[in-house]
Amino acid sequence: MIVVLKNKVEEEQKRQLIEWLEGQGVRTHLSEGEFSTIIGLVGDTSAIDMPLIESMSIVESVKRISDPFKRCNRKFHPDDTIVDAAGIKIGKGNFCVMAGPCSVESEEQITGIAESVKASGALMLRGGAFKPRTSPYDFQGMGGEGLELLRKAREKTGLPIVSECMGVSDLALFEDVDIIQVGARNMQNFELLKALGKVKNPILLKRGLANTLKEFLMSAEYIMAGGNENVILCERGIRTFDDYTRNTLDLAAVSMLRELTHLPIVVDPSHATGIARLVPPMALAATAAGADGLIIEVHNDPVHALSDGAQSLTPEQFADLMVRINKVREVVA
Amino acid sequence: MIVVLKNKVEEEQKRQLIEWLEGQGVRTHLSEGEFSTIIGLVGDTSAIDMPLIESMSIVESVKRISDPFKRCNRKFHPDDTIVDAAGIKIGKGNFCVMAGPCSVESEEQITGIAESVKASGALMLRGGAFKPRTSPYDFQGMGGEGLELLRKAREKTGLPIVSECMGVSDLALFEDVDIIQVGARNMQNFELLKALGKVKNPILLKRGLANTLKEFLMSAEYIMAGGNENVILCERGIRTFDDYTRNTLDLAAVSMLRELTHLPIVVDPSHATGIARLVPPMALAATAAGADGLIIEVHNDPVHALSDGAQSLTPEQFADLMVRINKVREVVA
Amino acid sequence: MIVVLKNKVEEEQKRQLIEWLEGQGVRTHLSEGEFSTIIGLVGDTSAIDMPLIESMSIVESVKRISDPFKRCNRKFHPDDTIVDAAGIKIGKGNFCVMAGPCSVESEEQITGIAESVKASGALMLRGGAFKPRTSPYDFQGMGGEGLELLRKAREKTGLPIVSECMGVSDLALFEDVDIIQVGARNMQNFELLKALGKVKNPILLKRGLANTLKEFLMSAEYIMAGGNENVILCERGIRTFDDYTRNTLDLAAVSMLRELTHLPIVVDPSHATGIARLVPPMALAATAAGADGLIIEVHNDPVHALSDGAQSLTPEQFADLMVRINKVREVVA
Amino acid sequence: MIVVLKNKVEEEQKRQLIEWLEGQGVRTHLSEGEFSTIIGLVGDTSAIDMPLIESMSIVESVKRISDPFKRCNRKFHPDDTIVDAAGIKIGKGNFCVMAGPCSVESEEQITGIAESVKASGALMLRGGAFKPRTSPYDFQGMGGEGLELLRKAREKTGLPIVSECMGVSDLALFEDVDIIQVGARNMQNFELLKALGKVKNPILLKRGLANTLKEFLMSAEYIMAGGNENVILCERGIRTFDDYTRNTLDLAAVSMLRELTHLPIVVDPSHATGIARLVPPMALAATAAGADGLIIEVHNDPVHALSDGAQSLTPEQFADLMVRINKVREVVA
Repeated sequence: MIVVLKNKVEEEQKRQLIEWLEGQGVRTHLSEGEFSTIIGLVGDTSAIDMPLIESMSIVESVKRISDPFKRCNRKFHPDDTIVDAAGIKIGKGNFCVMAGPCSVESEEQITGIAESVKASGALMLRGGAFKPRTSPYDFQGMGGEGLELLRKAREKTGLPIVSECMGVSDLALFEDVDIIQVGARNMQNFELLKALGKVKNPILLKRGLANTLKEFLMSAEYIMAGGNENVILCERGIRTFDDYTRNTLDLAAVSMLRELTHLPIVVDPSHATGIARLVPPMALAATAAGADGLIIEVHNDPVHALSDGAQSLTPEQFADLMVRINKVREVVA
Repeated sequence: MIVVLKNKVEEEQKRQLIEWLEGQGVRTHLSEGEFSTIIGLVGDTSAIDMPLIESMSIVESVKRISDPFKRCNRKFHPDDTIVDAAGIKIGKGNFCVMAGPCSVESEEQITGIAESVKASGALMLRGGAFKPRTSPYDFQGMGGEGLELLRKAREKTGLPIVSECMGVSDLALFEDVDIIQVGARNMQNFELLKALGKVKNPILLKRGLANTLKEFLMSAEYIMAGGNENVILCERGIRTFDDYTRNTLDLAAVSMLRELTHLPIVVDPSHATGIARLVPPMALAATAAGADGLIIEVHNDPVHALSDGAQSLTPEQFADLMVRINKVREVVA
Repeated sequence: MIVVLKNKVEEEQKRQLIEWLEGQGVRTHLSEGEFSTIIGLVGDTSAIDMPLIESMSIVESVKRISDPFKRCNRKFHPDDTIVDAAGIKIGKGNFCVMAGPCSVESEEQITGIAESVKASGALMLRGGAFKPRTSPYDFQGMGGEGLELLRKAREKTGLPIVSECMGVSDLALFEDVDIIQVGARNMQNFELLKALGKVKNPILLKRGLANTLKEFLMSAEYIMAGGNENVILCERGIRTFDDYTRNTLDLAAVSMLRELTHLPIVVDPSHATGIARLVPPMALAATAAGADGLIIEVHNDPVHALSDGAQSLTPEQFADLMVRINKVREVVA
Repeated sequence: MIVVLKNKVEEEQKRQLIEWLEGQGVRTHLSEGEFSTIIGLVGDTSAIDMPLIESMSIVESVKRISDPFKRCNRKFHPDDTIVDAAGIKIGKGNFCVMAGPCSVESEEQITGIAESVKASGALMLRGGAFKPRTSPYDFQGMGGEGLELLRKAREKTGLPIVSECMGVSDLALFEDVDIIQVGARNMQNFELLKALGKVKNPILLKRGLANTLKEFLMSAEYIMAGGNENVILCERGIRTFDDYTRNTLDLAAVSMLRELTHLPIVVDPSHATGIARLVPPMALAATAAGADGLIIEVHNDPVHALSDGAQSLTPEQFADLMVRINKVREVVA
């Protein structure tokens, strides 16, 4: 960390600041230039309160020069992490497509879709049992019963399952869920993140609607700091001002996260766009950008889906898309 | 709700769509123009899946013409709501300043600040016991012990207390907290919102960093739908692209929310700007804009505060600000 | 256009509004429901002032149901437009990569890069002669002399040239420039757009940093309304809150624009990310998403480039990228 | 400027970088810590290409520690600037309200409004003759004839006039306009900014829809670098994701700009909100926040205004607002 002082600071004030900084457990290194004086902080600066120092009257600005995330940081862990979910590997060249309906609706529905997406090459089954909805009056998911139907579909098809957990109250129900998903609106639900640090299941962490990559990685860090290192990051679109698409898919984030972290990175083109017609081009683009996987909504009857039917592919559209995804994979892998 | 069809739709397709719409429990009203055909939906459209209809091949666009929020909607409840927190009234001309430190640190600290802000005219004491922090390595608050110290400060000064609850696990500890605060990052933590619908305490709901006013109201609606109608809305800055201030305080939101809802609206200039020097002008601006109250960080020793010292006023600065706030109140009230 | 009235509007007020609307040159169609009254406007509503109607006391809301853009609208021109720039075709399956340095610096530089990118498969040469710079103290480009050097490079290699015009004062210098580029910051410089409607050169119009797709298309419409129908749209990243990348490349915009307009759409991965390492993955992603072309910065000596060296590829990196772009093209074309 | 090197950089590479940096005309100061090596750059770093250095393989990050703007920087010009427009002073305690219609429509209209707003206390008359419109099909203003009518209104009332110039083609017509306005969409029209640096008229520079304060100040710097130091900054709302208001008025920008620059700062609550009902609370809030003035749309017949009638106050509403603005001024001045 670098503290830049204002011009013409008195020696006494400078001395007091340095003393205070060293009292915070870091060593300092003074560098006096013609136009500016800079104090470099060496040691563990993660607990230093940057805005506070910035607010001091003799301080011009404060710059952090090291990342506040450690466990997920590629600098300290150069090799790609492979997450293993019930035998399915994700990351370091292991590409994984997860597919299924937004919401689990019935045994026939979820099993039928599972068989269909498996036949097209999906390696995992996704399905929502607990649904985060903006309105209290919207369908909230089948809950524990939905998880039960997912287990039946898993039994029948062999596909491991991924499903969203909305809070600590329900966490006990997810013990044998192969990947637990954290929704975008819960990315900074710290109570939930801490609890997920204590479980053994791999976690699929979705980026929040307006969160920076640094915040995204800090939320992964919360889970890892608790002891669970099996975290998969998921870019699913951020909020901007345009109203033609639901969100703005930020594919450069995939490439940038690749540099910053060793964790696997998947992309959700369905929620990112909210429009089924845009899912195939964005799935192909994400594959070309080097994502480690995709999570795609597929429904056998989108027009009658209980939620988010507008962004679901039919099984036929999904099968066709998988063929093209595999071709792009061959080019970029 | 209005469904606009594409040009040159076949009669049979039109008939099928109308039949399907009526199957969703609404009545339809067809209006055929020279250039466009419009189907108006009459009745309860809150459960209609707009994006799904929008995705149908014969549909050009769908527009919602009524608000999805009901209990907090001024249309159905024209009079301003007054929230009563331990005898302190907020709303409908009752202006309330809540002040105190970001984090509770010790009995001396919280009681000292409480006495000081009371003397300056604050009507409630704020203080964080459970702290949402972006990093797992940052100070997370004193927890239950912090709440205990808030109670002691309340006993000593008579000021009712407001403190943030971060999740359902801790909710039992907040039974006698006079106002329970929901932080911006939890605005769409639906598990927590549902639980808060079942308690008796008034709720101070902060707007999320990138949430629309509609989503903000829908989150209030979650709490109210559960049975707790004592909700206070709090604008605390949204995320934009500028990096000089932490967030962008959206004061027009205060005026717009005033039209949309009957709930009281307060403003947090401390978190909105993140810079103590900007708190007084923004507090005065919020007052002039017609807010029902303010929540302001005050610390007796900002330089040693364990969190967010940079945005805290000293008791002297707060006292000075209160004098000016009261003068602005006289002009606009 | 649809005007939704408030509940309980008096007949006389309703009559006056309808009379006033018809005075604006449109026909009206009244639809009275149980809970709402809707007036549909039929005819040319492009001159109707929506916010004004919205502000009237008896009006609940106003919704536009037809697009305000006409000449660039796919509805009125279903076939893809092919823009021909000195024999190079762009659009409707004609894929075009434009490459070259951010700024023209010398004859050796621009000719050397031109030969190199041509050998790798670029079909046009890009190069900045007039440079928009945030700071008045930064290098502003070589001006007319730079254009002269571009012409020499064109003569030597046969590559048509594309270069940015910053304002009407310089427009006369661009008469034989094969494509005239409009920069993002000038997307709504209406004086310039009107002038470009009167020239014969094809225009490459870049999307502004915070402009919606509708505004983007309206700016294309300005040029087309003046008589110049040869417009190419260019997505180059929008501004969001993250600070790791310079902008956020919005690739879903490519797919959405494809539906809305018949004009060709190219992508600029260099300005979108500002980081050379991210250019290849984003170029591949844009190709996979179905763009009609790419505009990529290439410099033989990025470390000594006078502007934007950080985002330039070396000729070797560009050659390698072109091989992969062509493979992705084979898959998605 | 601070260049932070990666861990474990070879001495030879370090030496080469330092040599190269010094070749750019700055002196360097090396500071080697346990975990990081930092090179401080001393001297004029305004021409140093930050992103380029950041892209070098041995560099971790680059931080600018001094502002790139000079002439408008308060550090080099601590006293507030007072801009004098035909005798009306703005800045350093001189508060100025400019009022008038969005567009000039006729002599009666503009003269009538001028007399009315003067009677209420406005010190200048605003009126648009050249109108920037998103659509080429919308009313584009009366042009030079509109300026003529403004001059007549000035003659009759004595109010100096402010009007927008959209480009260099029209600039000659503005010679005797008391303040020339630059619209938000032209904030980075560098051709226009350079031309305005050569005129004598004071300039009212509006902040762009998605521009940072630094960019805003750099655009002021363009004008000042050309020789015209009479620049007034105008905050008029930025673009965010909410759709209830047209833009988001950023009042904290007023306070932050106050620290960064000595130039006067005014606020436009009419364009910021786009809704007449929100103009009074935002005008009062801006006044309370310490703005040096306001620019407000007033129309005698908003329902028949040719543009932006929705955001115009009636003369009566304006008169009432002025009374309250003056009261708030008494409190905060």
